[in-house]
Amino acid sequence: MKLYDFKMAPNPRRVRMFLAEKGLSYADVGIEVINVDIAKGETFGREFLKINPYGGLPALELEDGEIISESMAISRYFEELYPNPPLMGKDPKSKALIEMWNRRIELGLYNSIALSFQHGNPMWKAVVNQVSEFSEVSAENSDKEFYKLDKRLAQTEYVAGDEFSVADITALCAIDFAKVIKRRIDEEKHPHLARWYKLVSARPSASV
Amino acid sequence: MKLYDFKMAPNPRRVRMFLAEKGLSYADVGIEVINVDIAKGETFGREFLKINPYGGLPALELEDGEIISESMAISRYFEELYPNPPLMGKDPKSKALIEMWNRRIELGLYNSIALSFQHGNPMWKAVVNQVSEFSEVSAENSDKEFYKLDKRLAQTEYVAGDEFSVADITALCAIDFAKVIKRRIDEEKHPHLARWYKLVSARPSASV
Repeated sequence: MKLYDFKMAPNPRRVRMFLAEKGLSYADVGIEVINVDIAKGETFGREFLKINPYGGLPALELEDGEIISESMAISRYFEELYPNPPLMGKDPKSKALIEMWNRRIELGLYNSIALSFQHGNPMWKAVVNQVSEFSEVSAENSDKEFYKLDKRLAQTEYVAGDEFSVADITALCAIDFAKVIKRRIDEEKHPHLARWYKLVSARPSASV
Repeated sequence: MKLYDFKMAPNPRRVRMFLAEKGLSYADVGIEVINVDIAKGETFGREFLKINPYGGLPALELEDGEIISESMAISRYFEELYPNPPLMGKDPKSKALIEMWNRRIELGLYNSIALSFQHGNPMWKAVVNQVSEFSEVSAENSDKEFYKLDKRLAQTEYVAGDEFSVADITALCAIDFAKVIKRRIDEEKHPHLARWYKLVSARPSASV
């Protein structure tokens, strides 16, 4: 298999971390890595758009030539192939709750950070019709999402409950990515988020 | 179970259609419907935020009091309980490809329509820091997404391939919702999308 990847970007990190939590490296699952430089605009170049017409990383090319893009779709593929330990739940209720939390993080926290970055950073000028006022509004939205997640983590050990799940991977990748819009966890304002961040950042999968 | 619902909104429709595709009605699965009026701001009222702190519909309250929000999380819950016919795939590859297409539609088409609406319609003034220029940009993005989906549907019968799936539900609900930003399928510009729209709109689930 080929994985179109860019080490510095947050979405490819989600898949790398997901596999590491399964105890697997790219080599273990037979992945050859192909680097596509987002910063140089390669994901929106003619060559890459043939691979993923939606222009995002990561993208996984299977042996039969089929392409799977979207980090959660690739993660689900590996969840099905390597079910242990489960990162997307093990019964109808836990599967639904993990999906819910993963989406709350994606649609709230992650999306507000990504939109603020895409509408505010010159790197995105060629592919995004930038609205700088919206970049500001999105950054302020991300502040609210930091508070909401802090409130949640006052109640539970991990994002989706008592156990580590894909929702923690999404949240960690989002929060580390937030440095591009100059947002960080503040131990005084977000004590529970800070507690969780230390816990999750210390996992070996966080530094692959 | 209780389902917090609003008949006119696109996300609740996704769950209703999903269940109908399983041959099930709300009554069949033991759902009592509680109406929450988005247009009157009830989803962001104090009472409802106790049920879903993220303020969205639909939300499913289980017998044990647990709440599942996010239409895809609720759909996944029902997919697990009632696996036939499968709407989220039946093997690792089809599960991943359906998840990919569903996300492409959500993050591209659906999101651009929803953001344009939320930043442009007075109904959202109280909860969204509106940027009217961004509403315009998002509507233009949705135009591009109509073309991308048309191109895809030139190659396949349904959004994710040869079989109807949850990705078709998401796409149909998004396209019908697009009337709020005055976007419709144009048979000349989007012939393949128009072909698919007729096919999918004729399913009994599309009118529940």
